[in-house]
Amino acid sequence: MSRSIRAANREALERLLRARPAWTGVLPAAEALGLRGRALLHAGPPIAWERMCEPMRGAIVALVLLEGWARDVDEALALAGSGEIALAPCHSRGAVGPMTGVISPSLPVVVVDDPVHGTRACSYIGEGSGPQAKFGAHAPEVLERLRFIRDVVGPALHRAVEAEGPLDLVNLMAQALAMGDEMHMRNAAATALLVRAIAAPLARALPEPSRLEAVLRFMTRDNDQLFLTWAMCAAKTGALAMEGAAGSSLVTVMARNGVEFGIRVAGLGDAWFTAPAPLVSGAFFPGFTEADANPDIGDSAIMETYGLGGMAMAASPAVLRIVGGQSFAEAVATTQRMAEITVGRNPNFGIGALDGEGSPTGIDVRRVVETGHVPAINTAITHRRFGVGRMIGAGIATPPLQPFVDALVALGRAQGAAAATAVTPR
Amino acid sequence: MSRSIRAANREALERLLRARPAWTGVLPAAEALGLRGRALLHAGPPIAWERMCEPMRGAIVALVLLEGWARDVDEALALAGSGEIALAPCHSRGAVGPMTGVISPSLPVVVVDDPVHGTRACSYIGEGSGPQAKFGAHAPEVLERLRFIRDVVGPALHRAVEAEGPLDLVNLMAQALAMGDEMHMRNAAATALLVRAIAAPLARALPEPSRLEAVLRFMTRDNDQLFLTWAMCAAKTGALAMEGAAGSSLVTVMARNGVEFGIRVAGLGDAWFTAPAPLVSGAFFPGFTEADANPDIGDSAIMETYGLGGMAMAASPAVLRIVGGQSFAEAVATTQRMAEITVGRNPNFGIGALDGEGSPTGIDVRRVVETGHVPAINTAITHRRFGVGRMIGAGIATPPLQPFVDALVALGRAQGAAAATAVTPR
Repeated sequence: MSRSIRAANREALERLLRARPAWTGVLPAAEALGLRGRALLHAGPPIAWERMCEPMRGAIVALVLLEGWARDVDEALALAGSGEIALAPCHSRGAVGPMTGVISPSLPVVVVDDPVHGTRACSYIGEGSGPQAKFGAHAPEVLERLRFIRDVVGPALHRAVEAEGPLDLVNLMAQALAMGDEMHMRNAAATALLVRAIAAPLARALPEPSRLEAVLRFMTRDNDQLFLTWAMCAAKTGALAMEGAAGSSLVTVMARNGVEFGIRVAGLGDAWFTAPAPLVSGAFFPGFTEADANPDIGDSAIMETYGLGGMAMAASPAVLRIVGGQSFAEAVATTQRMAEITVGRNPNFGIGALDGEGSPTGIDVRRVVETGHVPAINTAITHRRFGVGRMIGAGIATPPLQPFVDALVALGRAQGAAAATAVTPR
Repeated sequence: MSRSIRAANREALERLLRARPAWTGVLPAAEALGLRGRALLHAGPPIAWERMCEPMRGAIVALVLLEGWARDVDEALALAGSGEIALAPCHSRGAVGPMTGVISPSLPVVVVDDPVHGTRACSYIGEGSGPQAKFGAHAPEVLERLRFIRDVVGPALHRAVEAEGPLDLVNLMAQALAMGDEMHMRNAAATALLVRAIAAPLARALPEPSRLEAVLRFMTRDNDQLFLTWAMCAAKTGALAMEGAAGSSLVTVMARNGVEFGIRVAGLGDAWFTAPAPLVSGAFFPGFTEADANPDIGDSAIMETYGLGGMAMAASPAVLRIVGGQSFAEAVATTQRMAEITVGRNPNFGIGALDGEGSPTGIDVRRVVETGHVPAINTAITHRRFGVGRMIGAGIATPPLQPFVDALVALGRAQGAAAATAVTPR
């Protein structure tokens, strides 16, 4: 039994390592994800409107207003509470959403394709700094920026990447890792590399100087986390690749909806294993404390699922200041501890300070349960109150152990059942 | 005596640390440096045409052809040999030139101003990959690219930075250092940050889509060392700031002309102390060996003079592969060894893997002579043959000790003379 899990895990890891996610377009969610009618996606495991946290409700109000399904906040709240909007996790559609993760049909999403496994992942474009729908804000200026992204940024980027051809994200992320990004809470280098790659194609695709300048300013000013969207899409294609390995005990999803933390495992398809979402311990911006913090939220833990973020702390001395003061030695220790719960290293993502040793990759629920070490998740913290919708700090989330235990038990049952129902003798 | 040198060195270091070099423009050398008539600047200490290495002669031919002073290579060689061209080191004009460092009047130079000390430094824009005048090439396609830089890139960048306002280079370099650049042989992050900073202003300054695209392609394609020019200018302003500290034993110039390595010291003005330039031990590109290599060349050792490059190896695991395989531990050891020959650390340039400790800064000829440790200089290697003009590898140059000894002796004599002629008793 254990042997077959080991083989399945090896296969899952190899599939992840073979994936070559490339950025191919930016399309409305309706087109890219088939999200039609009054339907919204959200971060984390499934959750009904009644149980949602306030930041997620705020984001839903923002996207309902963007879509024109309601005229004001009260109408939007009433509509959302009426049950007339179909709600589903981003992960149910091959999408991933940072923070609240709310995606509506007209919202443009970055499209990333993995030609090796024929899979696709999508996520929306981060809004920059200040109040953001992503964090649960729905003020008029927030909607204005969303409209600019929808009507100007999205189409321009689509034309540019379509004309230039697919952009290999593994290569870009390998470069950014060598530049101190762990690609979850630090994407400053990756964002600069993205701008470097797309600036000339954009100049050709958007021959209107003022619009071009506006798009470039959006990408280059106070928007160092812009690339997170691309990174999450790439990571999701890696996770989708793992899903093809039957019987594997590797984690394919870790996601939070602000109320619950949930995981999925390659050998168990789309079954969720959940527990209450933790509070994030970290560094708060001046004027904010843990009392203002919503519990852990967002699909961005796909980065750790893929072997970056908290797994790659040793590559990113600069992220230490962002997530709260560890020494570099502790960062190296974190990466080494993560190696105890993973089945391999990603040779594409060598860590310079470890003389090129790859980032620990492929979280095995068996190892998590055996060691008691849970994945270290680097993450942003959002304000818990309705409508505030902004980042108030960042830190390292320590997810609950229980979902890993539950998944392991379920995997054992499934294996037993599979063995019991096996008709072909070996 | 030693006390007064110590005070002078403290002052020199403080002046360097206070400098705030900012990019302000791109102008023809005639305008920025007052380089008029048949005059050329070159890298390193002073050298006559007869003694120049072949790469430098090749670069002179290229720039003579660019200026239209000759119609072909033979005419250019004859003119250069005739003594009718005034030749002087870049450093004699507050300029710095990577590799051959040849600057002609119409060549556009990046202009960097330090408003704190009222100084200015200039250097020409790197040409990208392949054969380059910078490395000694003078083929027609090399001249064509120089014309593109002169006629299109330079003016466009000037308009963009003029409209946007000065770009603070200390801030940019601090970010790039956290992204694994040591700013001598690795400028990949700094170049991406430069593109990020100037892309939107360029879109406004150059409203012709095809030219804009061409300029952006030039800056973003196979041109990861582009920022070296800006880094060298910033470093030169730091060195110029040190020159104001009378009696200091800190090194203000280390430069090589491909035949000799030379230094200058703050307390001794523009006196050069030279010895034969070393060969560089390093990693050669496939098909090339040390037999093809010209001895050490270029003003780019201004980076180490400023406290980056080889001094900051611990910040740049990624440069190890470029300059030949050290382990990260050895890189850390190099930076710690450099701290033995410097008088301080630059708090603006904290090194992440050393928990933010600054890069060793302010090379003291006394400490060099005492310890026998010479500065580790990261550098590119050019082909020694006339007209080849391309990079064939990179490595770490170990400069000769003698110039440091000679400078120390001269400093002792100057101090003695100053003491002997002092008329005001203390």
